[in-house]
Amino acid sequence: MELSLSRTLLFSTSSIRHSSHQLQSRSYSRLFSLSLPFLTKINVNPSISTRFAVRSSDSITAKPSSELRKNRGGDKSEQDTKLRALRELFLKPNIGIDAYIIPSQDAHQSEFIAECYMRRTYISGFTGSAGTAVVTKDMAALWTDGRYFLQAEKQLTSSWALMRAGNFGVPTTSEWLNDVLAPGGRIGIDPFLFSSDAAEELKEAISKKNHQLVYLYDINLVDEIWKDSRPKPPNNPVRIHDPKYAGVDIATKLSFLRSELQDADSSAIVVTMLDEIAWLLNLRGNDVRHSPVMYAYLIVELDGAKLFVDNSKINSEVMDYLKSAGIQLKAYESIIVEVESLAAKGAQVWLDTSSVNAAIVNTYRTACDRYFERAGSKIKNSTASFAESSSQSMGPFGIYRTSPIPLAKAVKNHGELEGMRHSHLRDAAALAQFWNWLEEEIQKNAVLTEVAVSDKLLDFRSKQDGFIDTSFDTISGSGANGAIIHYKPEPHTCSIVDPAKLFLLDSGAQYIDGTTDVTRTVHFGEPTAREKECFTRVLQGHIALDEAVFPENTPGFVLDAFARSSLWKIGLDYRHGTGHGVGAALNVHEGPQSISFRFGNMTPLQKGMIVSNEPGYYEDHAFGIRIENLLHVKEANTPNHFGGITYLGFEKLTYVPIQTKLINFNLLTNTEINWLNNYHSDVWEKVSPLLDGSARQWLWNNTRPVVKP
Amino acid sequence: MELSLSRTLLFSTSSIRHSSHQLQSRSYSRLFSLSLPFLTKINVNPSISTRFAVRSSDSITAKPSSELRKNRGGDKSEQDTKLRALRELFLKPNIGIDAYIIPSQDAHQSEFIAECYMRRTYISGFTGSAGTAVVTKDMAALWTDGRYFLQAEKQLTSSWALMRAGNFGVPTTSEWLNDVLAPGGRIGIDPFLFSSDAAEELKEAISKKNHQLVYLYDINLVDEIWKDSRPKPPNNPVRIHDPKYAGVDIATKLSFLRSELQDADSSAIVVTMLDEIAWLLNLRGNDVRHSPVMYAYLIVELDGAKLFVDNSKINSEVMDYLKSAGIQLKAYESIIVEVESLAAKGAQVWLDTSSVNAAIVNTYRTACDRYFERAGSKIKNSTASFAESSSQSMGPFGIYRTSPIPLAKAVKNHGELEGMRHSHLRDAAALAQFWNWLEEEIQKNAVLTEVAVSDKLLDFRSKQDGFIDTSFDTISGSGANGAIIHYKPEPHTCSIVDPAKLFLLDSGAQYIDGTTDVTRTVHFGEPTAREKECFTRVLQGHIALDEAVFPENTPGFVLDAFARSSLWKIGLDYRHGTGHGVGAALNVHEGPQSISFRFGNMTPLQKGMIVSNEPGYYEDHAFGIRIENLLHVKEANTPNHFGGITYLGFEKLTYVPIQTKLINFNLLTNTEINWLNNYHSDVWEKVSPLLDGSARQWLWNNTRPVVKP
Repeated sequence: MELSLSRTLLFSTSSIRHSSHQLQSRSYSRLFSLSLPFLTKINVNPSISTRFAVRSSDSITAKPSSELRKNRGGDKSEQDTKLRALRELFLKPNIGIDAYIIPSQDAHQSEFIAECYMRRTYISGFTGSAGTAVVTKDMAALWTDGRYFLQAEKQLTSSWALMRAGNFGVPTTSEWLNDVLAPGGRIGIDPFLFSSDAAEELKEAISKKNHQLVYLYDINLVDEIWKDSRPKPPNNPVRIHDPKYAGVDIATKLSFLRSELQDADSSAIVVTMLDEIAWLLNLRGNDVRHSPVMYAYLIVELDGAKLFVDNSKINSEVMDYLKSAGIQLKAYESIIVEVESLAAKGAQVWLDTSSVNAAIVNTYRTACDRYFERAGSKIKNSTASFAESSSQSMGPFGIYRTSPIPLAKAVKNHGELEGMRHSHLRDAAALAQFWNWLEEEIQKNAVLTEVAVSDKLLDFRSKQDGFIDTSFDTISGSGANGAIIHYKPEPHTCSIVDPAKLFLLDSGAQYIDGTTDVTRTVHFGEPTAREKECFTRVLQGHIALDEAVFPENTPGFVLDAFARSSLWKIGLDYRHGTGHGVGAALNVHEGPQSISFRFGNMTPLQKGMIVSNEPGYYEDHAFGIRIENLLHVKEANTPNHFGGITYLGFEKLTYVPIQTKLINFNLLTNTEINWLNNYHSDVWEKVSPLLDGSARQWLWNNTRPVVKP
Repeated sequence: MELSLSRTLLFSTSSIRHSSHQLQSRSYSRLFSLSLPFLTKINVNPSISTRFAVRSSDSITAKPSSELRKNRGGDKSEQDTKLRALRELFLKPNIGIDAYIIPSQDAHQSEFIAECYMRRTYISGFTGSAGTAVVTKDMAALWTDGRYFLQAEKQLTSSWALMRAGNFGVPTTSEWLNDVLAPGGRIGIDPFLFSSDAAEELKEAISKKNHQLVYLYDINLVDEIWKDSRPKPPNNPVRIHDPKYAGVDIATKLSFLRSELQDADSSAIVVTMLDEIAWLLNLRGNDVRHSPVMYAYLIVELDGAKLFVDNSKINSEVMDYLKSAGIQLKAYESIIVEVESLAAKGAQVWLDTSSVNAAIVNTYRTACDRYFERAGSKIKNSTASFAESSSQSMGPFGIYRTSPIPLAKAVKNHGELEGMRHSHLRDAAALAQFWNWLEEEIQKNAVLTEVAVSDKLLDFRSKQDGFIDTSFDTISGSGANGAIIHYKPEPHTCSIVDPAKLFLLDSGAQYIDGTTDVTRTVHFGEPTAREKECFTRVLQGHIALDEAVFPENTPGFVLDAFARSSLWKIGLDYRHGTGHGVGAALNVHEGPQSISFRFGNMTPLQKGMIVSNEPGYYEDHAFGIRIENLLHVKEANTPNHFGGITYLGFEKLTYVPIQTKLINFNLLTNTEINWLNNYHSDVWEKVSPLLDGSARQWLWNNTRPVVKP
């Protein structure tokens, strides 16, 4: 899956990870520009309540895309009713605000979210995955980026102003608020839906006009008017991730985390990212599409741990498992009370303010202040007793720094790598069946839409052992649609797969043992010389990165130019990064590493990390090309070790043929041709045992060595 | 000239440029480590007094290295006498310090300095180019880096402690001072010899122990004891740089600078870097070896300019030239008084605190404070009159930011580029004569030392039109000496050029129209397979960078990995950057661009810039390899312009054959072989017209096309 769709890159550096609000309000402006620091995040999906009673929910499993796509917008009078209802709430005495910001996020900075959290969609009628709605007493505006201008124009009623982020002169949300509100206004947010850093940034920006940021902890105004029609939060069963695939047991992971806490002079950490919780506890959930996670919070203390999760998701096996790991179960909603009590008992809490929401961080800060106020009054009453108690504890204080979990999660262990390797072979088998089918259909002149094709791929994948879900919405783009980096075909508007045009297919799956993400671009007829030259140069970039050997401690961006060099030679480039991290049977996008032309991410690539290798080229209104494999960072076993260090290289995880018809062999060196032949030989060797019949024949046909003409 | 010798990189970003003191005290520690942010600076040479009467001086012109190298150290009793005299000065009532720091610098952050400024050498007896001496009432210590440990051990008497910077546990100068002095000490420096940033950093570091940094403006304690034996400051004649080579006249340059001042709301700028002054005024000097600059300060105001320079250097032609450019001449020493009067008249002065010394910056700051004190008292006396005067001027304030001059200087104009091209061809002719001579001598079994060889090269170069000087000390290293990146052969200790070993020669010259810097590595007999493999991989890196095409606004570090990739494949690397900027008939090292594995320098490569391309490989105790050309950044004329931008590439300036005997052709692609053959064809075409006889034949023999065996 290419990087523009990736919120992984948000994880790349803390300063970027922090800026979810900024991204929604500001970075869109640069989405299609090379100067964009990182690409935007996308929230596509459904699930749970931060503080209201959790009700039962539909189980969400993989469904054909055709079933999942409906316009969630409404008509004008319905939308106006919602706005009116929202504004009435502004005036309530315990609220009293002049504006309310409704972002796309859930309380966990998730890439894919549950439907009950799609408040921005509900209030605005705009169903795009990225956007921020701002409602004042007399105006309503929605910010989205270039991908969604047309869609937003269609879906927004005349009560809404569309703010085309990135277009010249379009203000950010805070600039707009500073402009339209009288100075000294009260701007409300749901503090669960902003990372602490994002909220602080917003507060700072609006303070220029003396506006105040009002945290409405106890009520989400959209939920309040959404009422009974609001989808129920998901409460699908949590399962234990097979130790074979997890590789390291929960006790070891918790003990690692606790030693990190001790090193940081910290006595507790609050973990809110859903994939971090799943990884740390070796649990998997099914609360959102594409990501095998469950909605939960986690607090790990030196001598215990508490998981905040809807009880109904936990069967007795998981209950026992958690109990024996020393983990107490608490209600999801009780996180805030627990954070307060951590402060009250003097805990030094590690909070990664780039991911932990403003509600939690602020609750802790306020409770710390209260602790010291009380301590102060104690001193007044009895200096001795305070001195005594403070000899046991210095009192609570926050340790605000990057969490140690993302890096630990990114460096895969043997079990995780084995699971990734195996699941990739089964995925490759499904893809061979799929491509064989598609080529046959096209030869039979079958008329297939982009969505039909992607549904058929899901069919093949779902027959593979251990298949759970797609790992993101399949990007299936024929011709010009392939040039739309974030293309998402819709059943009623998508194109027919045109045999005379390039076809780009970026897809991936969640298996019990691993996560895949692969892109191939093919032509069913005769590609033009232009298409072949561009494809060949993308392939050369892919090969250059795949074959790179580099010293340990090299950040990914150092390698990015390898993937572009061949395109640069003729003045071409692509406007997305080259590689993102991938979870092991977890999120398809994860940090902290990346391979990108943005220089901000200094995380070195480390042995055991997984990255995608996905250079591309996109010619507007014509075609798109991307070739993506997943790679595992491993020791390169060089004959020398200059500097006494290890040199690293890559092992391929993805084994899917690359269409040789699209290659202009005159451009390839012998080394590059050898790479291709070796790769195809490996594909045949590894994947053919999983195939039979015409799919096996297809694989044979498509893995034959080529010679330079 | 390779980058480790380069102070250019100090210019790369302001934060690095600032840290000359830090570099001397701290960064040595990492000189030979890949984690070094940038490489150290070197001050090798002689010249002028910051505030004492300027006396006549020897003219410094190019001399054979053999004549220039003498040990400037002394014997123990002599050194002890100096230390005693210095410590006596500590006690003087107007001084009263507990320690004194003696750095290598002059007052202009020059790479090459005049002998009269080599105070650290005088006081310590250590003649290495880099080092910091610190003397307390009862201790004396000298910091230097790995290059100089052996030399320092020999040259320092037992009164001095050698601080082997970079070795484990060795403190920095400030850490050491914090350790050995009783808290609250007074540490003296000559504020002219520290950039403002370096002094601030030092002040901060020693404040931890409550030490005070004492600026001794009026006296340099070393000069005070050096007395009459101190060399006279140079006062060689200043000349006008031919407009043909300068390309842009002084009026245009001053008008550019003044528009920059206006944009920055500034009314004056103080320029202290000697090459910046020479470039801006189209003047050249002869005050130090290797750099065609004169000791001077310059103040440019919106309506005038003042050059602070020893009058005796200025003949009537230059006098008239400056006068007609509206530039007033002032005594070199009067800079401080002038800076005070700028503040007194309310000027807003632009000061690049990374290069401007602490004496100037602090003088201005103090004078500003005085201005406002006076203004304050005026207000007391008459509020109206102050309001009136302040309506004309807001009063003085400093604009502390990067000077606009280095970037403007780095982007070469047509005249400068033409001068660089022509001088490079003459330089190439001299090198062809030299290599032809050397090969003949070696064939005759002549015994030649590394210094003799480098003197002979100077001979050939000095016969070329417009030759002025070498642009740095020639690095002439046979066998294992080639692996010492900063090797400087000395007449009495250097090696014989061994026909059975690799020979590395890094040299350059100053011509009237341009500056050169070129490295070639050759073998006179049969290279080993190992030497050939390493040479070939260095060459592949050189070719990869030379052929790179990249989008405008790409910082140099993005390209650095191209030059290393081939070495990385077998676990090799080199511990220096790949490219530095080069002045046009100016300093061989200049900023602000660079091509380096350090990611700090975000300066984009721009059309018109000149950079070196000098990957290498160094095998300790065995051999060194480096292949260096200078390149001009130019438009690449790509068939596409994705993103609507320009793509850039390189034009070679250096035309000297690369020894094909050292190449393992099995490793080269056809593209790489074509590159080599095209290059050699160009070398022949461009340089042969300047040659005759055996040198021409040598060039013919060494530019024949090769075919893959």
